[in-house]
Amino acid sequence: MTFPVVALIGGGQLARMMQQAAIPLGIRLRLLADRPDDSAAQVTSDVELGDYRDFDALRAVATGSTVLTFDHEHVPTEHLRRLAESGIAARPGPEALVHAQDKLAMRTRLAAVPGIPMPRWRPIGEIAELAGFAAELGGWPVVLKTARGGYDGKGVWLADSPAEAEPVLVASAQRGTALLAEERVEFTRELAVLVARSPHGQVATYPVVQTVQQDGVCREVLAPAPGLSPARAARATQIALAIAVELGVTGLLAVEMFETADGLLVNELAMRPHNSGHWTIDGAITSQFEQHLRAVLDLPLGAPQATAPAAVMVNVLGGADPDVYRRYLHCMARDPGLRIHMYGKQVRPGRKIGHVTVTGSDPAQLRDRARHAADYLSGAIDG
Amino acid sequence: MTFPVVALIGGGQLARMMQQAAIPLGIRLRLLADRPDDSAAQVTSDVELGDYRDFDALRAVATGSTVLTFDHEHVPTEHLRRLAESGIAARPGPEALVHAQDKLAMRTRLAAVPGIPMPRWRPIGEIAELAGFAAELGGWPVVLKTARGGYDGKGVWLADSPAEAEPVLVASAQRGTALLAEERVEFTRELAVLVARSPHGQVATYPVVQTVQQDGVCREVLAPAPGLSPARAARATQIALAIAVELGVTGLLAVEMFETADGLLVNELAMRPHNSGHWTIDGAITSQFEQHLRAVLDLPLGAPQATAPAAVMVNVLGGADPDVYRRYLHCMARDPGLRIHMYGKQVRPGRKIGHVTVTGSDPAQLRDRARHAADYLSGAIDG
Repeated sequence: MTFPVVALIGGGQLARMMQQAAIPLGIRLRLLADRPDDSAAQVTSDVELGDYRDFDALRAVATGSTVLTFDHEHVPTEHLRRLAESGIAARPGPEALVHAQDKLAMRTRLAAVPGIPMPRWRPIGEIAELAGFAAELGGWPVVLKTARGGYDGKGVWLADSPAEAEPVLVASAQRGTALLAEERVEFTRELAVLVARSPHGQVATYPVVQTVQQDGVCREVLAPAPGLSPARAARATQIALAIAVELGVTGLLAVEMFETADGLLVNELAMRPHNSGHWTIDGAITSQFEQHLRAVLDLPLGAPQATAPAAVMVNVLGGADPDVYRRYLHCMARDPGLRIHMYGKQVRPGRKIGHVTVTGSDPAQLRDRARHAADYLSGAIDG
Repeated sequence: MTFPVVALIGGGQLARMMQQAAIPLGIRLRLLADRPDDSAAQVTSDVELGDYRDFDALRAVATGSTVLTFDHEHVPTEHLRRLAESGIAARPGPEALVHAQDKLAMRTRLAAVPGIPMPRWRPIGEIAELAGFAAELGGWPVVLKTARGGYDGKGVWLADSPAEAEPVLVASAQRGTALLAEERVEFTRELAVLVARSPHGQVATYPVVQTVQQDGVCREVLAPAPGLSPARAARATQIALAIAVELGVTGLLAVEMFETADGLLVNELAMRPHNSGHWTIDGAITSQFEQHLRAVLDLPLGAPQATAPAAVMVNVLGGADPDVYRRYLHCMARDPGLRIHMYGKQVRPGRKIGHVTVTGSDPAQLRDRARHAADYLSGAIDG
C-alpha cells in the first residue's frame, strides 16, 4: 500500500486550502485548474490545465489517481458516470452530487425523506404556476431560484409581483434552465452544519455554527452558534446526518438552515469544504479540508472538536484599494493572534480574496477583532 | 507593495512545513532542491533543481525574490556574502549564521558574552591539548565534536582515553576539519528554547520545552517542559534572547540547553525552524514555520502562545517495514485526535519520515498516545 493521490477538480481557494491540509497527511494532489495562476495552482506541483467540462481533461487528471474530488459542484454528472465506468471513483459520487448541483433535484428528493423540514417550494414553468404558488403562500413576495448554476446570491431573485417575476421566467425559458419558487422565510438567523461521511459510512459532525450573509455572500461565521440550545443543535445535526446518509454523501456535506421562531428549515446543500467551515483550520482539531480528504479516501475520520470555546471567521472581500499587502502588515501588527488566510487572488471589488479567524472565549470580542481586520483588509475602513 | 516571494534553500521536511505555512500567508516560495521528489519539492510549484554549494544555483533562485532563507545551515558563508553584495539579503545573514554552522565560532563568540553559561570547552589540534583539557576537567571521558557539518549525533564522539580520541583527531586532520572538546555534562534533562527575531528587532519566544534524544537524534518533545520552575524558564528564555540579540539573528533561533543540578548550560544553536518546535503546528497560535517566514520577511511576528495546556511531539523514524501507509491507517483509526505529519520520504531505517503531535492537559497521557503512534508507525511495535 502506498500513499494515495487525489485528483482535485478546480483551482480555487478551497483547493488551495486542501493542499495545505494534504501536505502533513503525505497525500499528493493532482489539480485540474483553468490557469497556472489559479489560487491552488500557485501552491501545487502537479497541475493539469484544462476545463472541468472537458471529459478528456478530467480523465487525464484522474488517471493514476486514487480518487477524484472537487472544489466546486459544476462537473457534469455524465462525465462522472463515464469516469466511474473506467474505474475512477468520484467522491461525492454523481448520484449524491446532483443534489448539490440541482436545487430542484434536492427539494424533490428531500421532500420524500421523513423529518427533513424545508420551506414550501414549487417547480415553476409558467407564470400561472407561480401565481398559484403565491396564492397558496398567502401572497407575494416569493423567492425564485435557478435550479442549477447559482452561487453567492447569483441565481436567486425576490419577486414582489407577477410583473417582477416575468423577466426571470422569460430569461430562464430562453436559456432552458429550470426554476423553482420558495416561500420567503422569516428567519431569526442562519445556521450551518458540517458533516463528513466516508464510503465505509463513518460520520463526524462539527459544532453547529451561525452564518451571517450580506448581499447573498457569506460574511461571517460564529462557531459555535451563540446561544443555540443543545436540543436545537442536536436537531440541526440530526437533520444534516439524515441528509448525508439518505443521499449517500461521501466527503463533506454542508447543510445551510434557517432558524425561525418555529424551528429549522433546510435552505441549501454543498458537498465539499464550505465557507461556513473555514474556522476549523484554526479552531478545530481536524480542519474541514483535512476531513474532506480523509473522507473521500475512506481514511478514518479525524476528531472534529473545537480547540477553543469560540471562533469567529470573517471573509475578506476585495475593495477599491489593490494594495492589500500594506493593509495585511497593519493587521498583523495590530493583532498578533489574528489568523490571516490569503488566497493569492487578484483584488476585484466584492471578490473573496481571503478570510481571517480569531479564537478565544468571548464571542462578542472575537467578532469585533475579526470584523475590524476583515474590514481593514477589504479597505472598508482605514483606522 | 505586492506579496513577497521567499527563496528557500533546501528541499527537506522543514521546507515542506514552511510551504504549509506559506499558503495561508499568501507568500510564494521559490525552492532550491536537489531532486524533484525531495520532500518539499513534492508540494511546491516553483522549484529550481541545483546544489546549494553552487553560487549560480543560489543566485538563480534568489533573483526576483524578496529574501533568501534556509531549511539547513550548510550554505557556504562566502556565497551569502556575494549574494548580499548583489542586493539579495539572506536571513539569517552570514555573520549570524556562521555561529550555527561552526561550533568553534559559536563557543568562541558566546564565551565573550557575559551571562551565557556553557560547558567547559577547548579547541583541539593535537592530542596533547586534549590530554591537558581532560586533566583540567579532572579526567576522561571528554566529548569531541567536529566544528562543522555534524547533525543528529553525527560528528560527535565520546572518548574515554587518548587512545580512543586519536583516530578522531587523525581523521579530522586528514579532512582538514577543526575539532573542539567539551566536558561531558551530567545533565538531568535537555531543554530547548525557540526565539524569533525580525530585522526590526521584534522578538517572540515560545514556551520552553523538554527534548528527549536517543542515539543523538531528537526523539520526543514535551511542551511546556514539565515541572520547570517559572524562574528557570525565564532564565532559559533570557539566555536565548541574549544570544539572538548578540548574534543579530533574523528568523528563528533554537537554543538547546542542558539542565543540570546547578542550572543551565548552552549546548547547540540552530537558526531555522527546529525539531523542538514541530509541536507548534498543532499546539501554538503561530507555528514556528509561519513565524520564521514572518521574521525573515520583517513582518510583524505572530502570537507564540500555546493553544492547549500541553503538547507532545514524537518523531517517526523509518523502520524495517516499508508499508507505512497501512500503519498510518491503523493510527488514524485508533486515535482520531492524533495529528500525523508525513514528510513524503522513502522509508530508510532511522531516517526521520514524519512526526506525530497530540495536545491536551495530561502530559503523561499525551506522551503515551504520541509514543504509541510513533512506535507503531515506525514498526517498532505491532499492536
